[in-house]
Amino acid sequence: MAKFPTVDAFVSPAGSLEILSQHEIQSLSRFGHSNCYDLLRNCLLAVLNCGSEMDDGHALLQQYPDFTVNLIERDRGIQLHLQHAPASAFVDGVIINGIREHLFSVLRDIVYVNHKLQASGLDLSQRPEAITDSVFRILRNAEAMKSARDPKLIICWGGHAISREEYEYSKSVGYQLGLRAMDICTGCGPGAMKGPMKGAQVAHAKQRIDDGRYVGVSEPGIIAAESPNPIVNELVILPDIEKRLEAFVRMGHGMIVFPGGPGTAEEILYLLGILMDPANHGIPFPFVMTGPASSKDYFAKIDAFLVGLLGEHVRDYYKIMVNQPEEVARHMSQNMEQVREYRKEHKDAYHFNWRLRIDPVQQFPFEPEHTAVAALQLDREMPADQLAANLRRIFSVVVAGNVKAEGIARVKERGPYQIHGAPDVLEPLDQLLRFFVEQRRMKIEGEYVPCYQIVN
Amino acid sequence: MAKFPTVDAFVSPAGSLEILSQHEIQSLSRFGHSNCYDLLRNCLLAVLNCGSEMDDGHALLQQYPDFTVNLIERDRGIQLHLQHAPASAFVDGVIINGIREHLFSVLRDIVYVNHKLQASGLDLSQRPEAITDSVFRILRNAEAMKSARDPKLIICWGGHAISREEYEYSKSVGYQLGLRAMDICTGCGPGAMKGPMKGAQVAHAKQRIDDGRYVGVSEPGIIAAESPNPIVNELVILPDIEKRLEAFVRMGHGMIVFPGGPGTAEEILYLLGILMDPANHGIPFPFVMTGPASSKDYFAKIDAFLVGLLGEHVRDYYKIMVNQPEEVARHMSQNMEQVREYRKEHKDAYHFNWRLRIDPVQQFPFEPEHTAVAALQLDREMPADQLAANLRRIFSVVVAGNVKAEGIARVKERGPYQIHGAPDVLEPLDQLLRFFVEQRRMKIEGEYVPCYQIVN
Amino acid sequence: MAKFPTVDAFVSPAGSLEILSQHEIQSLSRFGHSNCYDLLRNCLLAVLNCGSEMDDGHALLQQYPDFTVNLIERDRGIQLHLQHAPASAFVDGVIINGIREHLFSVLRDIVYVNHKLQASGLDLSQRPEAITDSVFRILRNAEAMKSARDPKLIICWGGHAISREEYEYSKSVGYQLGLRAMDICTGCGPGAMKGPMKGAQVAHAKQRIDDGRYVGVSEPGIIAAESPNPIVNELVILPDIEKRLEAFVRMGHGMIVFPGGPGTAEEILYLLGILMDPANHGIPFPFVMTGPASSKDYFAKIDAFLVGLLGEHVRDYYKIMVNQPEEVARHMSQNMEQVREYRKEHKDAYHFNWRLRIDPVQQFPFEPEHTAVAALQLDREMPADQLAANLRRIFSVVVAGNVKAEGIARVKERGPYQIHGAPDVLEPLDQLLRFFVEQRRMKIEGEYVPCYQIVN
Amino acid sequence: MAKFPTVDAFVSPAGSLEILSQHEIQSLSRFGHSNCYDLLRNCLLAVLNCGSEMDDGHALLQQYPDFTVNLIERDRGIQLHLQHAPASAFVDGVIINGIREHLFSVLRDIVYVNHKLQASGLDLSQRPEAITDSVFRILRNAEAMKSARDPKLIICWGGHAISREEYEYSKSVGYQLGLRAMDICTGCGPGAMKGPMKGAQVAHAKQRIDDGRYVGVSEPGIIAAESPNPIVNELVILPDIEKRLEAFVRMGHGMIVFPGGPGTAEEILYLLGILMDPANHGIPFPFVMTGPASSKDYFAKIDAFLVGLLGEHVRDYYKIMVNQPEEVARHMSQNMEQVREYRKEHKDAYHFNWRLRIDPVQQFPFEPEHTAVAALQLDREMPADQLAANLRRIFSVVVAGNVKAEGIARVKERGPYQIHGAPDVLEPLDQLLRFFVEQRRMKIEGEYVPCYQIVN
Repeated sequence: MAKFPTVDAFVSPAGSLEILSQHEIQSLSRFGHSNCYDLLRNCLLAVLNCGSEMDDGHALLQQYPDFTVNLIERDRGIQLHLQHAPASAFVDGVIINGIREHLFSVLRDIVYVNHKLQASGLDLSQRPEAITDSVFRILRNAEAMKSARDPKLIICWGGHAISREEYEYSKSVGYQLGLRAMDICTGCGPGAMKGPMKGAQVAHAKQRIDDGRYVGVSEPGIIAAESPNPIVNELVILPDIEKRLEAFVRMGHGMIVFPGGPGTAEEILYLLGILMDPANHGIPFPFVMTGPASSKDYFAKIDAFLVGLLGEHVRDYYKIMVNQPEEVARHMSQNMEQVREYRKEHKDAYHFNWRLRIDPVQQFPFEPEHTAVAALQLDREMPADQLAANLRRIFSVVVAGNVKAEGIARVKERGPYQIHGAPDVLEPLDQLLRFFVEQRRMKIEGEYVPCYQIVN
Repeated sequence: MAKFPTVDAFVSPAGSLEILSQHEIQSLSRFGHSNCYDLLRNCLLAVLNCGSEMDDGHALLQQYPDFTVNLIERDRGIQLHLQHAPASAFVDGVIINGIREHLFSVLRDIVYVNHKLQASGLDLSQRPEAITDSVFRILRNAEAMKSARDPKLIICWGGHAISREEYEYSKSVGYQLGLRAMDICTGCGPGAMKGPMKGAQVAHAKQRIDDGRYVGVSEPGIIAAESPNPIVNELVILPDIEKRLEAFVRMGHGMIVFPGGPGTAEEILYLLGILMDPANHGIPFPFVMTGPASSKDYFAKIDAFLVGLLGEHVRDYYKIMVNQPEEVARHMSQNMEQVREYRKEHKDAYHFNWRLRIDPVQQFPFEPEHTAVAALQLDREMPADQLAANLRRIFSVVVAGNVKAEGIARVKERGPYQIHGAPDVLEPLDQLLRFFVEQRRMKIEGEYVPCYQIVN
Repeated sequence: MAKFPTVDAFVSPAGSLEILSQHEIQSLSRFGHSNCYDLLRNCLLAVLNCGSEMDDGHALLQQYPDFTVNLIERDRGIQLHLQHAPASAFVDGVIINGIREHLFSVLRDIVYVNHKLQASGLDLSQRPEAITDSVFRILRNAEAMKSARDPKLIICWGGHAISREEYEYSKSVGYQLGLRAMDICTGCGPGAMKGPMKGAQVAHAKQRIDDGRYVGVSEPGIIAAESPNPIVNELVILPDIEKRLEAFVRMGHGMIVFPGGPGTAEEILYLLGILMDPANHGIPFPFVMTGPASSKDYFAKIDAFLVGLLGEHVRDYYKIMVNQPEEVARHMSQNMEQVREYRKEHKDAYHFNWRLRIDPVQQFPFEPEHTAVAALQLDREMPADQLAANLRRIFSVVVAGNVKAEGIARVKERGPYQIHGAPDVLEPLDQLLRFFVEQRRMKIEGEYVPCYQIVN
Repeated sequence: MAKFPTVDAFVSPAGSLEILSQHEIQSLSRFGHSNCYDLLRNCLLAVLNCGSEMDDGHALLQQYPDFTVNLIERDRGIQLHLQHAPASAFVDGVIINGIREHLFSVLRDIVYVNHKLQASGLDLSQRPEAITDSVFRILRNAEAMKSARDPKLIICWGGHAISREEYEYSKSVGYQLGLRAMDICTGCGPGAMKGPMKGAQVAHAKQRIDDGRYVGVSEPGIIAAESPNPIVNELVILPDIEKRLEAFVRMGHGMIVFPGGPGTAEEILYLLGILMDPANHGIPFPFVMTGPASSKDYFAKIDAFLVGLLGEHVRDYYKIMVNQPEEVARHMSQNMEQVREYRKEHKDAYHFNWRLRIDPVQQFPFEPEHTAVAALQLDREMPADQLAANLRRIFSVVVAGNVKAEGIARVKERGPYQIHGAPDVLEPLDQLLRFFVEQRRMKIEGEYVPCYQIVN
């Protein structure tokens, strides 16, 4: 029995699912009875739960064990029949409009991927172009492409569980970006994913900008844990982490990284792996790491690690700016001009960066499995962009071994991941990971028992 | 060498083709070099030619023998490169915006059918549901579905080559419809296809209605001859005559038929075949035949023919109103209320009449081939809706034998079509066709030599 | 008893009269019972009558002798109670929206002038600046100032009672202007006042311009005779002919004159009087006289008259283009660029040409009274702009003596106006007037008996 | 020398001051040099200063001693030339758009009152109708009348210097109101004036309401101290406190009072004085007093005071709801339906409550001068609405004696105000005032020395 107040309701779509053919309605309705049901149910519950408090993003699925969803066929379209749904998503029995939009964004994207994209004959498992194409189509289907809009979508990355000071700082940066008419795109959820949007929203209101974009880009495995905060006015769900990362770098016109843990390190290395790729030489993509005064050491450590392993010139690709929210925003704003000029000159679209090369190995999922981990090459003879790519995978493995159910099970069964490589790569890596533990930037309880072992 | 002034230009899309994936751009570009090239070229030329005069729809393709079109790949999308295009479509070298929209509507629909629809795995040749589904998808892709709009789309049918008086009358009816906020949908081109739109546009302006719809529904084989008049602000091209007819009756909320020839008779019988289908009993669908005072005899003849062959109760399905433009519009306006009530009560969509049953034999193309014609059953023992459907085919055959290249060739080779059937069906049919000849409502030059022969 | 169908109705305002204070409502209501009642009634009737036919502007007030109007006080605002109003202004008992707008435009402007403007303490009878200011305020109150809009408002002048060919030509010019996104402003009514709007409307539709302006500028004495055609989507009524002329030249960015009679000659000379004023040297104001091929002689005559009296350099201020609708529009379009540049450079408003000097004597009404006429100076020693101004008055007198009730009465009582002046001015003037008679461009019945007499 | 960063800039208007006549521009410009200059300068500085922090409303004028403003004449309109203006109002040298709007709202309202309203001949000092009319005109001129909008503007009153808990509570109430699509109107500034707007803004974003209203109603004497928070998207400045109060009750459709001090008591009694007026019997006007759990005693005290002095039936006019933000909003929402029905039925405007009678003595300023205070009648024989009105004045006097420069001076010179009246009125009054002191709801430093003396 649910301990929290719940509501039963029928909810009709707004937007792209408004006009469906009977064939599509039947497919959707069947989908509701398929083995994807649990996935869909959990994502919808996550979205419904976001309204529980004005300021909260951590929702516990367990609170609503009886929640069920049914897709009802109507001649006029599809309806969701929600039972035992969190009452907080409703006002006097009527669903909050923004949450309604999120519900149907989930439905749209999960169905699109499982249904329309397959039907279209794109083979996602093989050809890299097909992956990029599918990312494009999912974004277009979500109407996340604004072809007439000047480049000004800033991707913000960083930890979910950051300190209050860091959260407030991310809000100020968002505020300064918003004052300069820039839009925000993050990975949904709390912390550094929410702060910049909140700040930008206040600034947009002050600037009387009423079409500000707060784009949340999520994936099915994550949305349940990190439900989109209510500010998000465009929600897109990509099928997996790699497509999600690709969506970020192809949609975004600039990147800001706030402090975080191994997940953030993963993201930094993902981006550097792309920017350092010789094929991408000359493509403007402003990249700033920033945080409050207290994060000075943190970024010094990150900087040293990157310079140590990837060489001095890695600094050409990013800028570290501590405690300078206004300067960060001004830097981004000025760089947007360059991005625009470059795209114009090369007749590139503003809404999707086709030109950027992403190494196919980065596009395919990396399974955090012991043999594969042990086989990863890690030495300084490699081209910097490829070493960055492999380091990114190491951090991905650490995240999995720390917090993901599957990774934890593997470590339990087969012991810590064995990381092989050149000592001058492994040592700084080990130091950085220990630093994260020290700074409590790993999601851990009690004494940290590393899920990996450095093997020289 | 062209005798008419021409222009070379690059034209970029507006609307739904603005945001394309590279994969789609390549497909489109390949399409431009396929064996569909001629079809595309001729349709585009027809659209370009419509601007030649303020009041003209008859364009001669021969005037622009050197016209070519190329689809150019751009990272930002697709462009049309037009060479030796009619100068009248341009103002000081810049294409007229409405014509630009029509160009990309053609591209969108021809490509959609040839490319996306196939890819979607819908088998159009077999299942009737698939046909309805494809009509729906083509209309949706053309953004011709307005789910939030009250029912008020009036289909107008009738001849292209009508008298000045009849044209002016069709304008008055459109004017009266427009004063009552109704929208117009016709088959494109001049005559009864244009008059109602012109009238409605003036009335909409007087009523300060700025979102009036002037929907043109065409097909590739016809658009070249009957280019959309400039008032059309939504142009959709369906792949064949059957899907076009289905689009009309599923989109439209009421029907008005003006005087015409065998083509108009075909349309009347198509609609009666559907409305008299017992499965459609009770579905409101107002259907009026109307014309100026001079058309009184014409409609008396049509009425007698219908009552004679389909029974007295056929009159339940239509209303003949001679020289009453205001009453026609008022009748439609009042009936729209019933249509809305019915749809609401049955939870039917306003934008597409899924409920209407269309006999599968009406959905599949009928080849005007001698053996098939000879085999058509025509007797009074048949259910009225099926007799209507077969009579519709006879008129279709007559149109083909009179004016379509293929039909004319067949008649030349194998002699007139032999029409078999019960004398009490064939005689009135023959009389009606002779009446059309008399009234010069058949497209003929010199003495009319019938392309058919009545065989009792 | 009225022979024409009538309707009784209550009509509520749209737009600026929607929100009134109780004080204003009471004033308005009192106004309805004042000695201005007849003026208001006749203007409202004229507006109501415009809808009688799709293509008609000549309404006869006598057809609705019983028409009355009452202003009803409502707490929510004012309502018009119309009794015995022309049925053609209504659709199924509901007033046509555009006509409703015109009704309240009349109410707004007549009340504004009689009520608010006086209250504001502007003394209109004395200071020229006050006159300009009042013109500005009336236009602003009518929301006819679009400060963010690029200069593109073309004033069209010419006769009301022109030939079909001339009407069609004015339509083509409007069409070509509309294709180039220009707006039209005329004096309301039929003929050259309507043609350019009709043409522009069709062109705007083709260019998908949905905010095209069709501005009608009228005055109380004229609107009753020349009711605004239904295309007019902004109607402003200035208190007298001089303010109306000033409104034209200060709002408009260019001028086109079509063929006409003495009224048109008056307008040409009014404009030349301003443009030739040395104070206005260098201010761009494109001015074209144009007509169909058949108007060649007409413009040759005008040209000879102007050059003969005002000197060769008068041609610097206008361009005569016969039978070249496209070139006329292109010329205007190109000149709009210069107007814009000039205004920008001089920080002048786009929406009102403050900089233009208008000689105070042109701003004050000229009473067509025998002594004043006889006293007008007409010789070549005068500065050209002042001679133009006086010639303008002569034409004004001729118009009055020909068609205005007061003028006709005066001529009847005191004989023809005696026009004094130098022979080398009077002779060409006489010739031109005779030419107008010959061309039937004077509103006359039977043999023309001139209302003036040339006195050397 | 300014210790804070400043900026020099030219600022152009948006909105209603965009289109001015030259006469008006000259008047405005002269106004900038008149003895109203200081008033204007201080109001503009207050508005500029609001942007200093995301969350701050307390601005110190002393920080910008060198700030000057000039009104510059331009042919295209007026410009503000700001020198030594607070840098926080600018982003990279460009003024924040919302602040720009506030600047020109100040200019508009101060000029309107000083210039246009006088010119209009309304005698504000004498006739009550003229006062109501002027309030109406000022609001209309500020475009604060939305005639087509359903009643949903909720006035929020309460203290500026409330506790964090009370501030957060006011935010929740605003949030719940916003979820139910209601708009907020307050007196500008921090505390209970800001909380409801902040909450409503978040809720409107969640409900995807993009036309939410956050109306700030201020007066010249107060705006300098309590600058409008950045959320305010409509700012209106009324000339004095009485017109400001009238604006609130005529624009608003419901009232919520949060905890506060004597100023809040004044407002409560002002409203009760109106609602209890027999002339207003039956006019729906929902009135709720609310606060967090900790405010329970506070409202119990207020309630006891009101019931004790005005009788049990005073409770018919308000509802006290402690710690029930959701219920408060629901109550308001339900009552809006009644307000709408009532206005509809009585054909009253939605945007201005003409019907409400306000006793003329409440409309004219009450000078807090010793003789007038001593003469105030305070006994239970008076009609309740008049006693409420006189009590309102007492609180007004206390506010003046406590914090207003003039009042303090008077008390210093002539000793505490002597309040005469019946003991059974004076005693509860004294108790309530002491309670405010106890609760630190009087703006006092150190030991409170009352500025009044109860004289039985």
